Amino acid sequence: MKTSPLNTDLYELTMMAGLHRHAKLGDTATFDLYFRRVPFQGGFAIAAGLETALDALEGLRFEEEEIAYLSAVGGEPPLFDRAFLDWLRDQRFRGEIWGVPEGTVVFQDEPLLRVSGSLAECMLVETMLLCILNFQTLIATKAARLWEASHRGSVIEFGLRRAQGLDGGLSAARAAYIGGADGTSNLRAGKAFGIPVRGTQSHAWVLSFPTELTAFRAFAETFPGNVILLVDTYDVVRSGVPNAIMVAREMRARGQALRGIRIDSGDLAYLSRIARQMLDEAGFPEVKIVASNDIEELVIEEIIRNGGRVDIWGVGTNLVTGGGAGGTALGGVFKMVEINGHPVIKLSDSLEKGTSPGRKQVWRLLANGGAQYEADALALENEAFAPGRDVLIIDPRNPLRRKRIAAITSCEPLLRCVMREGKRTGPRDTLDAARDRRVENLDRLDSSHKRLVNPHVYKVGVTQALWRLKEELLNLQTT
Amino acid sequence: MKTSPLNTDLYELTMMAGLHRHAKLGDTATFDLYFRRVPFQGGFAIAAGLETALDALEGLRFEEEEIAYLSAVGGEPPLFDRAFLDWLRDQRFRGEIWGVPEGTVVFQDEPLLRVSGSLAECMLVETMLLCILNFQTLIATKAARLWEASHRGSVIEFGLRRAQGLDGGLSAARAAYIGGADGTSNLRAGKAFGIPVRGTQSHAWVLSFPTELTAFRAFAETFPGNVILLVDTYDVVRSGVPNAIMVAREMRARGQALRGIRIDSGDLAYLSRIARQMLDEAGFPEVKIVASNDIEELVIEEIIRNGGRVDIWGVGTNLVTGGGAGGTALGGVFKMVEINGHPVIKLSDSLEKGTSPGRKQVWRLLANGGAQYEADALALENEAFAPGRDVLIIDPRNPLRRKRIAAITSCEPLLRCVMREGKRTGPRDTLDAARDRRVENLDRLDSSHKRLVNPHVYKVGVTQALWRLKEELLNLQTT
Repeated sequence: MKTSPLNTDLYELTMMAGLHRHAKLGDTATFDLYFRRVPFQGGFAIAAGLETALDALEGLRFEEEEIAYLSAVGGEPPLFDRAFLDWLRDQRFRGEIWGVPEGTVVFQDEPLLRVSGSLAECMLVETMLLCILNFQTLIATKAARLWEASHRGSVIEFGLRRAQGLDGGLSAARAAYIGGADGTSNLRAGKAFGIPVRGTQSHAWVLSFPTELTAFRAFAETFPGNVILLVDTYDVVRSGVPNAIMVAREMRARGQALRGIRIDSGDLAYLSRIARQMLDEAGFPEVKIVASNDIEELVIEEIIRNGGRVDIWGVGTNLVTGGGAGGTALGGVFKMVEINGHPVIKLSDSLEKGTSPGRKQVWRLLANGGAQYEADALALENEAFAPGRDVLIIDPRNPLRRKRIAAITSCEPLLRCVMREGKRTGPRDTLDAARDRRVENLDRLDSSHKRLVNPHVYKVGVTQALWRLKEELLNLQTT
Repeated sequence: MKTSPLNTDLYELTMMAGLHRHAKLGDTATFDLYFRRVPFQGGFAIAAGLETALDALEGLRFEEEEIAYLSAVGGEPPLFDRAFLDWLRDQRFRGEIWGVPEGTVVFQDEPLLRVSGSLAECMLVETMLLCILNFQTLIATKAARLWEASHRGSVIEFGLRRAQGLDGGLSAARAAYIGGADGTSNLRAGKAFGIPVRGTQSHAWVLSFPTELTAFRAFAETFPGNVILLVDTYDVVRSGVPNAIMVAREMRARGQALRGIRIDSGDLAYLSRIARQMLDEAGFPEVKIVASNDIEELVIEEIIRNGGRVDIWGVGTNLVTGGGAGGTALGGVFKMVEINGHPVIKLSDSLEKGTSPGRKQVWRLLANGGAQYEADALALENEAFAPGRDVLIIDPRNPLRRKRIAAITSCEPLLRCVMREGKRTGPRDTLDAARDRRVENLDRLDSSHKRLVNPHVYKVGVTQALWRLKEELLNLQTT
């Protein structure tokens, strides 16, 4: 599938033209893509977007109409000269990518992606890679928080109508499925990714019939195998649930079963409790209760704490946009760490914003025989890690804080080589694999890091070798 | 251009199948699309997305591969029967649309869109219309707030890397241009919509040269007509600005001119003030200062209040995602107001969530000889308004609050018929027209409603005739 290289910022192209003009097309570089803060003020993130990014890289090429557009940018005189535009025609991404597989638990400062290639091609792909990974990682993380808040219950993504564009809704559905949703209402996402699609009916359906009961009956006759009735158009307790129970009895008499009811307004804790009681007393303990309406993870916690009896959580706005505290965007960055074989750093007044130099690997260190994550180490590419060794890591935000992990029981490198010379190195990772990985990873993360509010910060440090390199470069740059 | 009708929620299709099954395909309906709360806790919103929505409606049709996908949904037995799927093949949107033109100032409870047609086709388009209008209106509103905060200065949209998907970035660029941005960094948006594209260079450009000065020189040689230098890679005051001034002198000697510098970190108020002073003292008062880095409207106000000297505001994340207080999504809804010619209401425990029945028009009432917006009236479709008359409006959120506007000096209907039988009624509105409309509209809105924090609430009320109809329907439904 072709991807337009115009999915980028103008400055990437002007810089590429500068490299072309100054005979710097042979320059090579490595960039790290990482974020500095876990979103939602939480304790972990879930990596997502890698396979989408690899698809986009494989399909990247300029079409004639795109070259024609670029040739006109800037008016008279045009910004770009003919020689550069001709050169663009043959540009593809031919670099190397190391990436953290989708569904992996990740933390601040860890490269999700390491991109090596010509400096020009790294610039070409920067904006697109950031857009894809920032957004999908944000949404997968939100989904995981919702899923954990529901005690690993059933979360369905319902948010297309509030999504940031139709494609915003599409990639949100994909990322939500990786992170914790079991299905989506979005048919295009169902078709594109094979995600199970789910749905009930709207208030308009109920209002279009003379009575709620006739509306329920009509729906039950149309989809006998898949009936979830929306019970809050008039009054949940006095009308909606009694009518749903009547339809459930009629269905049972026909050898069918009502699957559920949906409550979309009011006090969801109270109403779900009453509805559960009414359904149980009427002999329908198997009928599920779906709740929707401004759901987010703290609301789920609160409803459960207040005795709510919700089986399925329909989450819209807050899931597809990453709404709620600390949301809307993951502030991922794409920073040069090596140029023409030499490690580089970008200084900053804030420790948080300084970069770590060189080609790196992220090592996850496990304790308790591999059952639990202990800490992560950012290491130089060729540092060796092995079970049984001691590892000292240094907090890059506060170099006085150090942690020695004695005799690690196991360790695994998170970055894998997924693309070489612009081609995938292996088969595409499936969404099912990413979902399984998310479950396994979260199983091995201590619950203190999964707390929704004020979580314990997971330790991510740099190795002594990496720290020494950083200090060396700092000293060189200090004038 | 073809639009996939799968850009929707499953439940729209199941409800349509229900209508098909129950011989309700002849049912007709009218829906209002509106929001209940102005985003960002602000006092106004800017309508956007109408032309995008009309394009999508005109291109809506099912392809064979989409029918094939739907035929498999639900497994065995499939959810949809063959007769319904065959019927879908010929479905197009053939209804009528009244819409508020893009760039118009709008408020809570006012239909941005009124959709009439068969009940089935209204359901088909609901999710897609909501997605498009919710998002573009959110972003246009954000852009207008940024533009007003900058004292109607120059705002450039830089946000693709933090956008919610590549298409999220594309429609955000469009909406931002309507609402207040003068340009975008997004090349695809430049090509698709003719929006001026803007850009400078990144830290990676500077780092890829042996020194900052050689990096600046190389850039200036490549684009002599369009040089904005990023001055914060090492140190703005000690290195970046002095080097930029040196390059500005060299350019002047060649008969060229440096256009600007960009500061992307640190205290923007302080650094822009110092940089302005250094540039002025060196004889370069015409060199512009661009500021970027987590800009939003309150930050702009604060920088200006603190004596910052910024000429151009580069805004990324917060503009393309609607970040900041009250953002991420506009909670627009799509509510049935008429079925088969009969007005309907949806009751709710909260006054805010109750709907207003019937086909309506929004009237903007002007005072001071038409110079200023006084209040808006939601009226039944056929109510007559004319200058010189008194109008009484009733607050639908609190029916005891009423306002009499004596002898209105002029009035205009906001909803225009833009589509009939599925075809546009006239030529496409241009982005320039929408931008002009935004300026004119905001000129006529009192500054108390434009305050960024705690604005004066603009009055939107229903007419007595509409209120009587609402009460009548309420009484009928009260059992």
